[in-house]
Amino acid sequence: MTDLEPGGRAVAFLGPPGTFSHAAVLEVFGHDVRLLDCATIDDVFVAVSNDMARYGVVPVENSTEGAVNNTLDCLVATELKIVAEVVVPIEHHFMVRPGTDIRELQKVVSHKQSLAQCRKWLAANWPALPQEEVASNAQAAKMVSESSTLAAIAGRMAAETYGLDIVSAAIQDQKDNSTRFLVMGKHDRAATGKDKTSTLIYTENRPGALFRVLEPFEQQQVSLTRIETRPSRKEAWDYVFFIDFQGHRSDRSVSVVLARLAERTVEVKLLGSYPMAEAVPPAPAASTD
Amino acid sequence: MTDLEPGGRAVAFLGPPGTFSHAAVLEVFGHDVRLLDCATIDDVFVAVSNDMARYGVVPVENSTEGAVNNTLDCLVATELKIVAEVVVPIEHHFMVRPGTDIRELQKVVSHKQSLAQCRKWLAANWPALPQEEVASNAQAAKMVSESSTLAAIAGRMAAETYGLDIVSAAIQDQKDNSTRFLVMGKHDRAATGKDKTSTLIYTENRPGALFRVLEPFEQQQVSLTRIETRPSRKEAWDYVFFIDFQGHRSDRSVSVVLARLAERTVEVKLLGSYPMAEAVPPAPAASTD
Repeated sequence: MTDLEPGGRAVAFLGPPGTFSHAAVLEVFGHDVRLLDCATIDDVFVAVSNDMARYGVVPVENSTEGAVNNTLDCLVATELKIVAEVVVPIEHHFMVRPGTDIRELQKVVSHKQSLAQCRKWLAANWPALPQEEVASNAQAAKMVSESSTLAAIAGRMAAETYGLDIVSAAIQDQKDNSTRFLVMGKHDRAATGKDKTSTLIYTENRPGALFRVLEPFEQQQVSLTRIETRPSRKEAWDYVFFIDFQGHRSDRSVSVVLARLAERTVEVKLLGSYPMAEAVPPAPAASTD
Repeated sequence: MTDLEPGGRAVAFLGPPGTFSHAAVLEVFGHDVRLLDCATIDDVFVAVSNDMARYGVVPVENSTEGAVNNTLDCLVATELKIVAEVVVPIEHHFMVRPGTDIRELQKVVSHKQSLAQCRKWLAANWPALPQEEVASNAQAAKMVSESSTLAAIAGRMAAETYGLDIVSAAIQDQKDNSTRFLVMGKHDRAATGKDKTSTLIYTENRPGALFRVLEPFEQQQVSLTRIETRPSRKEAWDYVFFIDFQGHRSDRSVSVVLARLAERTVEVKLLGSYPMAEAVPPAPAASTD
């Protein structure tokens, strides 16, 4: 849990209740929080912008599947700030309604991506059980709560929300699968001494542009933690870069980097400085040496 | 059209017939070609690897929606080479079965992404018409060919394949929307003097790693055309970079870059050198100056 305080106001997240986004909200704000579940990632940003919620929680990156492009595209448009990050392990469980005889199961339901992430386990354990894709894991859990011939693949939060029994736990093929979530708010965070800064960078569309962006970071020994490319949506084949790095915007080295980038006519949008999540494993010394 | 010759053998693509991938095949190989339509992008790679097809055509990037991650993940695993690229304009049309009275329409069907790309046009022109998502635009066109109360949103190739009438043309909200396709084969291409090279780069997972990758390109004045990040799938929060640049692997400057990267213990997988697509607009001199 962080020191962020909704102050009695709601926290918006990608619903329905029981999603991994819901789990991320509880991880950050605890159980004593007012929830506002939204139908889309865009709606989470709108809810915070319109003061319907104090904070909003959205997925930004999965360790196996990569960036959540919808969130990146919302970050391009928003005036909100990133105020925290949280990493949630993604564990999938095979679950049924209490009292179900699993020999009577006729179908397993889940989100397409979850079925894909448990493909090997399903092939080994339930090769003959038909699979059906539904809109979310939480919806799958809800369907299962109303039927004794269905099983769902979903997270623990969904099992708790809909009162289901977990028959087989942690069945996902990739064991160290996690998703990073961002907490969006209206105000910047002060430095804590162990921070990260997220930026959106518009470069000139010409040779060497990315190199000239990275050079000031290298000169100031500011460590990049992530770089992601997205279409700028201004013109075809023009790109923006999402660059995250260690440090707070008020750090001297970071100020120098930002000044150097300004000299180079690189446009930088500061998305926020915020405490680094504890759960992110530190980078190993040198994996290919 | 390129000088690639299937020699009477098939060209595999992401089906069903009528997709934009199908249009890309005809753009590269002309109409006198044996087609092998595949259900998934993975299947296209398998078909070429197993000699069921001489070449395979897969989408890699859309100018509005960004990278096609499934193709990038296939490039990590494959031993095939990229032998050509082609850029196809993505135009969506509103189409019906010949003889349909459009006042009788009860539903418009299309792929989720196509409905999204025509959202504004649909809201302005058919606000009350229910929408249904189906697996592909080509499938939507096939459904419409069997019904006089349905309309489809799909490309011209789908209209031709299923004999439909285009009621409204080029209805997509983003007018300069294009998709870049790759042609996969088993053998490298010789230099033409105007080539591009695609690489997959595994860096050390430590600060400054990406900078040390880009430095040799800058020193040799080799221009990057694209950089894309994907999870390595080896361990959580470890990444690979897809870097495309101008030049052929046999060019002196490119050889120097590759030698410098080897000295820096950067692992490079050469995905192929191939002629740059004519249709890609040249980079403007400096868009933010």
